Amino acid sequence: MYFDHAGIATDDADSLAASYCQLFETNVAHEEELDDLRVLFLDIGDGYFELLEPTAPGTIQRYLDDNGPGIHHLALATPDIENALERARDQEIELIDETPRTGAWNHEVAFLHPKSTGGILIEFVQH
Amino acid sequence: MYFDHAGIATDDADSLAASYCQLFETNVAHEEELDDLRVLFLDIGDGYFELLEPTAPGTIQRYLDDNGPGIHHLALATPDIENALERARDQEIELIDETPRTGAWNHEVAFLHPKSTGGILIEFVQH
Repeated sequence: MYFDHAGIATDDADSLAASYCQLFETNVAHEEELDDLRVLFLDIGDGYFELLEPTAPGTIQRYLDDNGPGIHHLALATPDIENALERARDQEIELIDETPRTGAWNHEVAFLHPKSTGGILIEFVQH
Repeated sequence: MYFDHAGIATDDADSLAASYCQLFETNVAHEEELDDLRVLFLDIGDGYFELLEPTAPGTIQRYLDDNGPGIHHLALATPDIENALERARDQEIELIDETPRTGAWNHEVAFLHPKSTGGILIEFVQH
């Protein structure tokens, strides 16, 4: 598997994107509205920073309320997400998503529970 | 700039590395002792997960005491770290390291203050 993106919770995605684009000399690769979120992807080499701004109450708004802005999750890409989830099950890792669902950028995604993965919210993604 | 690694604070780098290597079908690319840390780098495509385990009191031990295990920082690589720091200064971003210092894997590194970068501890690294 390989690094796909770091998900970053923010209450102002446009302002953070403008700052990061200048700082990292990069650009916004993709943006969309998805459920209760505005999502911006910034190019950082072969991967992305995914800026997540809540547009309504939900997981990211709760994260911001509890923790303030910061790194929310790390995503690894695979050409076979079902196989990756099977491997996680073999290791008795607790899954948040037992089966893949459609996430940002129309990719198939599934999250693993941080208590099984060293305190880190891990996302599997298949483009 | 491009993604280099995610720094992950853990109190058991060996055990987390074993779990991640199996889960992500990858391997340990590099390990070393650096100041008050044991550091393991896992290959994830063109970047790394850097597992940080304290061997003595210090920044990572304090992070673990305050937050528990989790994502500590995100690192972006550049061929010219002095230029990247100059760009940060132009944006009035507060720097933790005004000049680069030698970090893990003998790379030149410098950290930016999270209060200037959306709550995220950002590391610049030059290989």
